[in-house]
Amino acid sequence: MATIRVTIWNEFLHEKEIPSVTELYRDGIHEHLKRVLQREGFAIRTAYLEQDEEHGLSDDVLRETDVLLWWGHAAHHKVSDAVAERVVLRVQEGMGFIPLHSAHMCKPFTRLMGTPCALQWRDAGERARLWCVSPTHPIAKDVPLQFTLENEEMYSEVFQIPKPDDIVFITWFQGGNVFRGGVTFTRGMGKIFYFHPGHETWPTYYNENVLKVIQNAIEWAAPAGLRDLNPNAWVEPLETL
Amino acid sequence: MATIRVTIWNEFLHEKEIPSVTELYRDGIHEHLKRVLQREGFAIRTAYLEQDEEHGLSDDVLRETDVLLWWGHAAHHKVSDAVAERVVLRVQEGMGFIPLHSAHMCKPFTRLMGTPCALQWRDAGERARLWCVSPTHPIAKDVPLQFTLENEEMYSEVFQIPKPDDIVFITWFQGGNVFRGGVTFTRGMGKIFYFHPGHETWPTYYNENVLKVIQNAIEWAAPAGLRDLNPNAWVEPLETL
Amino acid sequence: MATIRVTIWNEFLHEKEIPSVTELYRDGIHEHLKRVLQREGFAIRTAYLEQDEEHGLSDDVLRETDVLLWWGHAAHHKVSDAVAERVVLRVQEGMGFIPLHSAHMCKPFTRLMGTPCALQWRDAGERARLWCVSPTHPIAKDVPLQFTLENEEMYSEVFQIPKPDDIVFITWFQGGNVFRGGVTFTRGMGKIFYFHPGHETWPTYYNENVLKVIQNAIEWAAPAGLRDLNPNAWVEPLETL
Amino acid sequence: MATIRVTIWNEFLHEKEIPSVTELYRDGIHEHLKRVLQREGFAIRTAYLEQDEEHGLSDDVLRETDVLLWWGHAAHHKVSDAVAERVVLRVQEGMGFIPLHSAHMCKPFTRLMGTPCALQWRDAGERARLWCVSPTHPIAKDVPLQFTLENEEMYSEVFQIPKPDDIVFITWFQGGNVFRGGVTFTRGMGKIFYFHPGHETWPTYYNENVLKVIQNAIEWAAPAGLRDLNPNAWVEPLETL
Repeated sequence: MATIRVTIWNEFLHEKEIPSVTELYRDGIHEHLKRVLQREGFAIRTAYLEQDEEHGLSDDVLRETDVLLWWGHAAHHKVSDAVAERVVLRVQEGMGFIPLHSAHMCKPFTRLMGTPCALQWRDAGERARLWCVSPTHPIAKDVPLQFTLENEEMYSEVFQIPKPDDIVFITWFQGGNVFRGGVTFTRGMGKIFYFHPGHETWPTYYNENVLKVIQNAIEWAAPAGLRDLNPNAWVEPLETL
Repeated sequence: MATIRVTIWNEFLHEKEIPSVTELYRDGIHEHLKRVLQREGFAIRTAYLEQDEEHGLSDDVLRETDVLLWWGHAAHHKVSDAVAERVVLRVQEGMGFIPLHSAHMCKPFTRLMGTPCALQWRDAGERARLWCVSPTHPIAKDVPLQFTLENEEMYSEVFQIPKPDDIVFITWFQGGNVFRGGVTFTRGMGKIFYFHPGHETWPTYYNENVLKVIQNAIEWAAPAGLRDLNPNAWVEPLETL
Repeated sequence: MATIRVTIWNEFLHEKEIPSVTELYRDGIHEHLKRVLQREGFAIRTAYLEQDEEHGLSDDVLRETDVLLWWGHAAHHKVSDAVAERVVLRVQEGMGFIPLHSAHMCKPFTRLMGTPCALQWRDAGERARLWCVSPTHPIAKDVPLQFTLENEEMYSEVFQIPKPDDIVFITWFQGGNVFRGGVTFTRGMGKIFYFHPGHETWPTYYNENVLKVIQNAIEWAAPAGLRDLNPNAWVEPLETL
Repeated sequence: MATIRVTIWNEFLHEKEIPSVTELYRDGIHEHLKRVLQREGFAIRTAYLEQDEEHGLSDDVLRETDVLLWWGHAAHHKVSDAVAERVVLRVQEGMGFIPLHSAHMCKPFTRLMGTPCALQWRDAGERARLWCVSPTHPIAKDVPLQFTLENEEMYSEVFQIPKPDDIVFITWFQGGNVFRGGVTFTRGMGKIFYFHPGHETWPTYYNENVLKVIQNAIEWAAPAGLRDLNPNAWVEPLETL
């Protein structure tokens, strides 16, 4: 199988501003994820909001990307509409897309969903327990049917997304909430997995189960058997009319 | 049950330009549908592209609309982005939305879907047979499990939509094609039914089965038990942390 | 609308054997539910395991039943295969079916699902919080988007059911578990809603939200637009071959 | 990846009785499929109805089977209940299951579905066109988005199955019918793909697209990341109660 080409996009603001985040992810969540995920044999590049006018996501970069990870939070509005639209189009053509944590409201994801993707949240560092409810799903492979994050930001229902293709994980939170926190969608030829863990102030991306889920998701979302879907166009009859 | 307030929106261009269409729908598809559907007890108003700058869809009109029908074809691009966005937001709040026929590519629908909604087509007036594959669905109530339109524009797969909540009808076409032609979606509190019949040059909206499906769809899509979904916001814990 | 004819079936063993259950449901869970639900205008009859050889579910009774509620626990194996099969066939023909709580493993439900319907459980009287994740669903109408049961038996994932048509409620449990506890299925013309609350030692069926959900589920599951689906049979071509 | 162990089960009656079938499949559909599929590197064995009292499907054989193909037609009732139940249990544990053509009413499939799986049929050798409506599905990989079988038995809606996980193919028939003819389901850890082509009197299993779909389905249905799902059992709390 060809090497999967991954681009990890990160807003990369909190890491430079909040000491506790700097301590966890000195050169950014993107560089941290790149280090740990490239052990799995992916060809990884990174990009970030202030990299250039296109936020590091030129048309060429996206053309050479099989799966795009996206971490954003405070600056969704600073992502240009043109870049957001470019990502949407690439997903529809077949690029895998994995919005992480607070990327639930990033421009490409809300445009692909057609809903606000709002949720209820609480940053209290409470315990989160992820329960697998689709044990046959490739994204759940070799991941325990239940695992725990001692501290994570709480995200809660009602999560305003369309009905997912599959709910892979439902998360229990200590404070009394539940969340469909690992969910898949298809848009055109593109496969999408939203995964909620990853608040910047907790060492979530050091957790081996979280990393395994992300690795599985990359492999699942990578295009296989890509093809051009039809444009909106006239076609000849197959039978005599 | 309160009377359902329906707004029928129509592009209303072909009726003024193409003699065969004028003959079928002299005062527009919208006025024709209004006449036949108001027998079912709906409170119906109509609106059209060139009615005013907002295409007849002011904020007030949409606030007073429970279910919006939409027929458009040649001038999707002439619908203002502001009005399209207003429709999208109202659907997410709970307004039912029923795009008909060539409205498969209208702005509000493609934005709610997050996909191009492209398809393959052929205007040869061929025979179409609609097969019900969800016989318990309210939209299929009192409609034959199979019915025929002697002449209809052909729409074919691959229809580039997300996976529907339910496929109510699959259409067989004489020329060898099939089409998921009656499909439901939910976006926020809003229920959506796309239904393919209704090419302007054929008397499709005189067919009693087509009209029954549209009537059922209006009743199904009308908001019931509307409520405000949460904004994206902080919430208190329910349990002691 | 015609009055909905409901049959409430109950195993009716614990109520005669366990003092705390007797105190809550002296004449049985079935008679209690009958009293509270008939205020909603349903025509209700009851039946129970030891009523007669057919457990009160003769062919005539089932023919006159629009929606069947089923509460069972310790004696699933005492339900005759013939009666279980009769229920399955009636559901496929269009009778609504609402297995409650420990009926998750009753014969008719597991046969309709094709899976064991096993789950993990713990009877510790812990707190349960039900979260609505399908706010447009008729079963959720006028029910809070989150409500609490102070004491309920815990049921946990992995719940071995097929993928539900809709997940209406996901339940959070104090002890760290989650459960897809309010889920819908369709089998033939029959609509099914499994709902987890209702352990016999807690006053769950006095909770107004639980009762409202059951009332909604009855109205949703009642047959509407019933029709005979085709037998497996030869058919004439619709087109010339 | 470990070699996938496939068992092809065949009723193997028509091949011995009907000359036109003998001509196509002299030593049985099972042996024919074995010959062509083993080129793909699968480890294949075959079994058939009259092989022995267990129809060649001993517990040992099923334990050593990753994916079971099943072709049956006239003698579904001759398959013992014990063997049918054994297959059902193995599927729930994770064995892939691919019922072909008239196996739509075989005992294991109907038990896994919980529905009659009835359909309408016509054996007129008419043209069938298979349309892919899930172009990202692994079963559709490298298969044309539309392909044709010049002669096939017609199978038509309403196909009495539960809502599939995915509809991969919808088939158009010359005589005016449509059919959800390539559909997936999950039951426990087991993945199921029903595929309609394969009437014994036509050379369907010589068609390269049909064979490619079956090959893909085997690879998709093969267990990956198998695990024991929980029995119905008591569990300790994860949190202090």
